[in-house]
Order: sequence, then C-alpha cells, then structure tokens
Amino acid sequence: MYTNLKRTLAKECAKKVGETVKVQGWAKKVRHLGNISFLVIRERTGELQCVLEGELAGFSIETESVIEVIGEVVSTKQTSLGVELLTSSVKVINKNTLLPFEVNKKEVNTGLENLLNHRVLSLRHEKIASIFKIKATLEEAFREYLTNMGFIRIFTPKLVSQGAEGGANVFKLDYFGKEAFLAQSPQFYKQMMVASGLECVFEIGSVYRAEEHNSSRHLNEYISLDVEMGFIEDFTELMELETDVLKYMFAKIKEKNETELKLLGIEVPTITDIPKLTVDEAREILKNRYKKDMPEGDLNSEGEKLIANYIKETTGSEFVFITMYPKENRPMYTMPSENGLTKSFDLLFKGLEITSGGERIHEYEMLTQSFKEKGLNEEHFENYLNTFKYGVPPHGGFAIGLERLTAKLLGLMNVREANAFPRDIHRLTP
Amino acid sequence: MYTNLKRTLAKECAKKVGETVKVQGWAKKVRHLGNISFLVIRERTGELQCVLEGELAGFSIETESVIEVIGEVVSTKQTSLGVELLTSSVKVINKNTLLPFEVNKKEVNTGLENLLNHRVLSLRHEKIASIFKIKATLEEAFREYLTNMGFIRIFTPKLVSQGAEGGANVFKLDYFGKEAFLAQSPQFYKQMMVASGLECVFEIGSVYRAEEHNSSRHLNEYISLDVEMGFIEDFTELMELETDVLKYMFAKIKEKNETELKLLGIEVPTITDIPKLTVDEAREILKNRYKKDMPEGDLNSEGEKLIANYIKETTGSEFVFITMYPKENRPMYTMPSENGLTKSFDLLFKGLEITSGGERIHEYEMLTQSFKEKGLNEEHFENYLNTFKYGVPPHGGFAIGLERLTAKLLGLMNVREANAFPRDIHRLTP
Repeated sequence: MYTNLKRTLAKECAKKVGETVKVQGWAKKVRHLGNISFLVIRERTGELQCVLEGELAGFSIETESVIEVIGEVVSTKQTSLGVELLTSSVKVINKNTLLPFEVNKKEVNTGLENLLNHRVLSLRHEKIASIFKIKATLEEAFREYLTNMGFIRIFTPKLVSQGAEGGANVFKLDYFGKEAFLAQSPQFYKQMMVASGLECVFEIGSVYRAEEHNSSRHLNEYISLDVEMGFIEDFTELMELETDVLKYMFAKIKEKNETELKLLGIEVPTITDIPKLTVDEAREILKNRYKKDMPEGDLNSEGEKLIANYIKETTGSEFVFITMYPKENRPMYTMPSENGLTKSFDLLFKGLEITSGGERIHEYEMLTQSFKEKGLNEEHFENYLNTFKYGVPPHGGFAIGLERLTAKLLGLMNVREANAFPRDIHRLTP
Repeated sequence: MYTNLKRTLAKECAKKVGETVKVQGWAKKVRHLGNISFLVIRERTGELQCVLEGELAGFSIETESVIEVIGEVVSTKQTSLGVELLTSSVKVINKNTLLPFEVNKKEVNTGLENLLNHRVLSLRHEKIASIFKIKATLEEAFREYLTNMGFIRIFTPKLVSQGAEGGANVFKLDYFGKEAFLAQSPQFYKQMMVASGLECVFEIGSVYRAEEHNSSRHLNEYISLDVEMGFIEDFTELMELETDVLKYMFAKIKEKNETELKLLGIEVPTITDIPKLTVDEAREILKNRYKKDMPEGDLNSEGEKLIANYIKETTGSEFVFITMYPKENRPMYTMPSENGLTKSFDLLFKGLEITSGGERIHEYEMLTQSFKEKGLNEEHFENYLNTFKYGVPPHGGFAIGLERLTAKLLGLMNVREANAFPRDIHRLTP
C-alpha cells in the first residue's frame, strides 16, 4: 500500500508531524521495554527513533543492517529531533553479517589497525564520519577562496618522466617501455601553468612519496593543496595569502560543520596574524630557552614542537611561519636571499609542519646555476628548464598537506585517521 | 620614484583614468608609427595598449618577454578597454629567448605535437587558455551542484592492490616489495564510501588506463568526475541526477565564461530532458535506418556517431542515454535486470561516450555469484567483497570524463587539446 512513498530523510521528519513517511538507513540499536520496542535508525542526516508496538514489538535485527521503516511522525520530547515514528512496518533491505567491533557506542573501542581494516564499518560512527565531513569542507573552502580571488584550478599529470625534487623517494613504474615516476608534487607543473599566463593557479590532487618512514605524521599518498602565484613583489605576499586562505577555511568549517565540531569537542582556533620567525631566530630561542641544539639551519620535530609551544605561550597563536632557510636545506628552485639563505618558509600548526613554500627562481641562468650547485644533471630536467626561456614572471607558492591540517585541527594522534584508506609502508589495503 | 607602486591589473585600468599605474605582463606586440610606438601588454585579465613617445618610441622587445610598464591611464576610443597608457617607463623583467611559433596571431598556426611540446607558450594564446578556464569552471560547477545537494567530497587512493575492473589495462608498480596498481577508477572505493554511511559522495581525481589506444579520444591519465549515491529506488534516478548536474555545469559556464565562449565561437547547448534509448532500440535504428550492423549488445564508435545524429535530428538533443546493456558487456558489479540485461547506461554527447553508469549489486551473495560468472577470482577482491557483509544499501553512480566533456563541448578535434599535459602511449613529457 505504501509502494509509491518516496524516502524521507530523518532530518525532514521534524517538519512532517502527522504524515506517513518511509525512512531508510542503518539499524543503530533496538531496546525492548515490555511490549514496546524502540528502534533507532541512522542515516546521513541524523537518527530517528521508531516506536514498535503490538506485533512489531520484540523485533530483532542485527545492528548495522540496512532497513526501511514506514510509520507516522509524531511529536515527542524524548528525542533531539523532537519527533519519533509510530511504526507500521519494518523491512530488512540488506543484512549485516560482519561486526568485528561495536560502532554504536559513544567511542569506538578498538585500535587504529582494526578501524582501518574495517573502514566501511568504522566510518559509520558519527565521530569518525565527522572527520571526513570536515576534511571535505576544508578542501571546499580552499578552492572557494582561491576561485573567488581569480585563481584558476589546474590539473597536472601525476605520471611524470622526472621526480620533482630529483630525490630517491619516488615510486617508479614501467610506462609502455619507458621509465616513469609518480609525481612527488605538482611543483614543476604549477610553475609552468603560472608561466603559461594563467598567473594564479591552484591544484588539489594526490602526491606520492616513496619514503620508508612509518610515523604518525607520514603518508605515502596524500592530498596536496597547491597554490602558485605569478607577479609577486616579495615572498611575504605568499604568507599573507596563506594566512587569508586558512582564515577562510576555518571560518567555513565553523559555519558548515557546527554539529561535527561539537561532537568532536573541537574549538577552531581564531587566526589573526600569524607570527614569523627566521630559522636562526627559532634556533636561538631553542638554544637559550630550552637548551636544545638544532641541526644546522633547520629545526627537528622536537624543535618544531617547542617553538610552537613558545609561540602559543607568547602570542596565543597556534600557527607560526619559520622563514629564511639556508640554500642547502631547500630545493634547487628556491629563490636565494642574502648570506646563503632563501626566500622560503614552512608553516607549523600545533608544532607540525603543514606547509612548505617560498619564492621560486624565475630566471633561466640563475636556475641552471642552482641546478649545478646542487649537483643535478640539467638534461634530466630539460622540459622544466626550458620553461624559463619563454619569459617567466617572479612567482612563488606553497602547498598544504590536507590530512595533516585536518589531523592537527581535530587533535587526531595519527595522520592516518584523516585518510579513509591510508597508504603506508605496510598498508596497501583496503 | 615609483618603487612603492603596486601592480594594477589591465582590467582595473578602465577605472583609473588620470592615475599613474604599474602594469606587469607579457609583451604581446609592438608597432612603430613614425615617432610613436604602441606596445600591447597581455596578462590574465586582458590586454592594455601602451603608447610610447619621445625617448621610448622605437622601443624594441622580443615578444612574450615579461615586462613592467608605468604610465598614466588616459581615455581612448581605440581600445576595447576604453583606456590606454601614456607610458613613462618600460622595464624588461625577464626576456623570452624561445619562440618556436607565433602565439600572438588570431590562430596558432602549428600542429598539435608542437603545441603540446611547448605548452607554456601555446597556453599564452587566449583561445587555448580559454579551454582550460572553461574546464576549470566545469569542474567547479560539478562539485558546487553536488555539494549543494548534500553530497560529500571523498578522496580515495590511486595506489591500489587490485585493478577495479580486474582487466589487463592497468599500470603496475613496485610498492615496497608488493605489487601495486594505479586505480583505473575509484569504483570500489566510492561504493565503499556510500556503504560507510556517507551515502551520497563524489570524487574528482586522476584515473589511469594502460590502454595502447592511440586515438583522438583516449588518454592514459585523465580526470574522472565520479558520483555514487545510496538508497536509490531505480537506476533512472542516476540519469536524472546526471542530467541535472550537466544542466548546472552548462549554466555555470554560460554565466562565468562568456568571454571565453565568445572567443571560441561556442554556443552552449541547452539541456532539457535527455532522450533515452535501450541498446536494442539503438541497434534497431542503426540497422533499419542506416543499414549498419553493430556488435552484439553494443554500439561501436560509428554507431554512436550515427545514433547521436539521429537523436539530434529527431529531438534536437546533443545528448542521448543508451541503456540496458547486456551483462557480458558490463563489469561484474553491475545490477542485472531481466533477460540477461543490466540496469546500466552510457551517456553520449555529440556522438562520444562521456559517461558510464548504472545501479550496482548491493547484496553479497549476488555479487560473489556475478564474480564467479565472470570467471574472476574472489580472493583477489576480498576487501571489496567484504564491504557487502557490512549492510550496503541499494546504490549506483556514474563517472564523467572531464577532458572528453570539455573537448566535445568546445568542438576540439582531439581530447589532448583539453589536457594541458596529456599522457599517451608516446607522450610522457612535458
């Protein structure tokens, strides 16, 4: 009799008191109280309590099965939606037969390995799903801000004939008899797209690092939010742009993901101006205040954490730009400054590097010289180097690691938690 | 004296009559008329004519060099902007030293190979740049529509342990001693994300086909716009959704890319309802009307073109859905219908397949049976198959090839023209 009923979403039921609706979702739990049962159905817009009386009371179902419930929407003070369903029929659409852990508790009590092995199940937990809803909004806001600013979304190849940084950490493959690599970053291509006259570009895509790290902050495949901008006057413009992008991203999740943030108990930091320290200043502070010696011209991960604490204590900021790295510690395309330093920066968020950026060399002669100094064979980079014969403007850019940003924002212990199907040295499935 | 001047964009000059501005861009051309010269500077917002008099007259520059011009904005009836610059200084920022072809003519007179080999240069031509601006808007509109409809943007791995369709056309690589593949599509993962409770998801990402085709419509790496939707009642809902998505995409480029469409002389087709034909109906028409025999249960590319012409003539539509392909011609996850057919569809646009889609099997038993029928080893698909034990709703989806859509819309002869850095059997650079 109800065959023509269209599905009603849980959230919409609040406005349908007195109507007969069909609701579809997953069976979250069933409670029996004498001759009445309460079935909670969960779907993407929320949860709905269904009251089962008479013949339906005592209804039994494996939780996480897909079900369809038809009934009348009635008001109640017992649920957060303000309504429940007086059920007239329940149908099992597809049974769950695999429940390696319980996902309908307040917290999921199992290890990360198990969560990742059973991603389809663990994502059913609303706290875990919230991570991915927020991640989606961060990416949406990134592109929205840049599109509004006149940046063009580009798509560049991930199958390349040369590793971007020329290092050893690249995945190799056979490409119709030629040696190809998976791009470590869209670095060369985003610079080429600036030089092509598009000037201000961004890309959102997968990047690949064949690093044998197995830490809580490394992934072998991750999403890089890349920006490159032509006609800059100074590399500080890039830090200003990144600050504005991040402000917009954080404002957007506050607006769009209030429910998820509340569920996770996360307060989104307010970004005003982001403090800047040169590497040398940071190293001095670490030496004088914390008695820590850092590697030459760099900070190690302990140093990054301590500097973050220092900045948080002295300025209240969760972010800090570390600038002016020495040439030796930056890629060959980095624009030099004085005294062997470069116009470069990293951005730390809660003590973790989430961005590398800087001005790039735009003159052919200077660039080939830099390749020589790094001991790189120019012939391997012919296509990239040729770009600089076409007339390239001063430019620079940066890249944000989306999983790292998400993980740090949400206080996740491991960056894998911000990746639905992470890839690491031991993990290629599911 | 002008060192503190910020860059003014060409377009903004129209509102700055009487002001001294600094403009930066590429030298498009110089004309000398006695003791006065006209220099046209081109950048991302347009072109500006600079008048060079006195000492500056006779100024010589290699076109496509990066230059900076300072001068006073004055009104004129001679340019489309309505202003020109009375130049007080010209500075060369970075010289062009490589001009294999002329990009400042109305059309670029060189072959596709040359255009692709010198992408940075060919993209300077405003018609060529327009392709990529429109492509960016198509993608923007795709995600905007789906986000507005409550779909969640997902990110799934491209490094996988099993080829999505199980075919031979996959790129293989060594992943820390294990055999890995580049994903042919996010098919398995988008289904898993639906099953995870996100229900309605989309992804925009690279996909890889190790096909040895070398045609004008194949790429070995391309951007797939993927959609997957849970709790469908019928697979026709998917075609309705795709129709709405395409309507929105086309409306958005009409709104945002008026300039580019005009430049390319493109009239964007109006989409109303998209006609549907079953494969059998299409084959009948081809046989009776065109005397063409098609392969069993399928159309070949000649048939696709003829059917497109037929539909265009009889209904005015540039699009047509071909539905109900037989099981043998669809992947193992396709939901069967009656008589050996499936709940599947392709979408043809101007005679080219730009989409495959359909309802998927959501029951574990039916799916393993389908794997067996196709002669596939279930063990190789364990992770995917396990998904269907967790309770999966009825669902389906589709994928649009972004380059094919762009190419067909813009009347490009070769899909490579819609890819900045295409990858094919012979091309891995630049």
